[in-house]
Amino acid sequence: MARWEPNTPVRLVHAAVDLFTEQGYDATTVTEIAERAGVTKMTFFRHFPDKREVLFAAGQEIHSRILADAIAAAPDSAAPLEAVAAAIEALSATFSDDRREFSARLQALIAAQDELRERSASKHLGLVAATGAALEKRGVPELAAGLAAELGLRAFDRGFAQWADPANHQPLAELTGRALDEIRAATATLG
Amino acid sequence: MARWEPNTPVRLVHAAVDLFTEQGYDATTVTEIAERAGVTKMTFFRHFPDKREVLFAAGQEIHSRILADAIAAAPDSAAPLEAVAAAIEALSATFSDDRREFSARLQALIAAQDELRERSASKHLGLVAATGAALEKRGVPELAAGLAAELGLRAFDRGFAQWADPANHQPLAELTGRALDEIRAATATLG
Repeated sequence: MARWEPNTPVRLVHAAVDLFTEQGYDATTVTEIAERAGVTKMTFFRHFPDKREVLFAAGQEIHSRILADAIAAAPDSAAPLEAVAAAIEALSATFSDDRREFSARLQALIAAQDELRERSASKHLGLVAATGAALEKRGVPELAAGLAAELGLRAFDRGFAQWADPANHQPLAELTGRALDEIRAATATLG
Repeated sequence: MARWEPNTPVRLVHAAVDLFTEQGYDATTVTEIAERAGVTKMTFFRHFPDKREVLFAAGQEIHSRILADAIAAAPDSAAPLEAVAAAIEALSATFSDDRREFSARLQALIAAQDELRERSASKHLGLVAATGAALEKRGVPELAAGLAAELGLRAFDRGFAQWADPANHQPLAELTGRALDEIRAATATLG
């Protein structure tokens, strides 16, 4: 056995992305994913309800927590979008450069499959909701909290799409920070 | 045969909402929906791929068209959010008061079912994309177009949630118009 072995959910995510890339999403079964990750089907189902959730469930939970924690940790004086900027930066910082190639493959898989695009949209909304709820806890009114959260996650998605291109060499935090600046500037032009 | 008979997709939508309300979403089959609507299963599948799409496919297509047409028809001088306001008003105007009770039942069904909430989120994104694309055709830059579209559809969803309450007696266009004003005001408070 290898000295270092990543934990089971991570192994399942990587096995799933590898198999989906190699043989297609529809053609891949839970049994094959479990086998590739070296676990039983029962272990798979202890972590994920189906093969689609492998790509989203863990990310949604972890990212929601990172965003909410960063919002809570922002100084009391921070305006809603300043707190959101800190949260987007904290989340971006967790994507080190060695995750870029994997992220690019994951993005390509999602883009090619209705079912995955739909789940990705619902993950986006889940992260917006978690971020908005954290802002409301700081006393930001519900409407403003939802909007600030939406602008922040749009900036993250925009920066992430640029970053998940193997030709790009900038850190994710730089790209998402710039995207948030552009989005702030654009909101002033809407009339 | 009744003198007036609504068209098949509308009959299927109403049969589906009735059955989902009476006996639950999971327990209802395509065969039952077709039977209730007085058509064959084959006719059902000519209109919709599955029982979930009955609730969304037609609405998404029709609403996208109404929004895009209204954006295209706005005066050349209209700012992005002015064009969006006109589009939201046009869409709202299609919801006459006799659709309120049905809309309330549909909203309750969607709220109670993950699978339907997810599809509803993807419908929201589809409408944002259609509205944004119509704004881009007017020369609005992509980033601003997406934001204006998102703000408009947020206003629509907000007003719709208030309207789809049988206790409410205001026209939908009034509620969505006020919601858009509130959203515009809130964007100025984000920092």
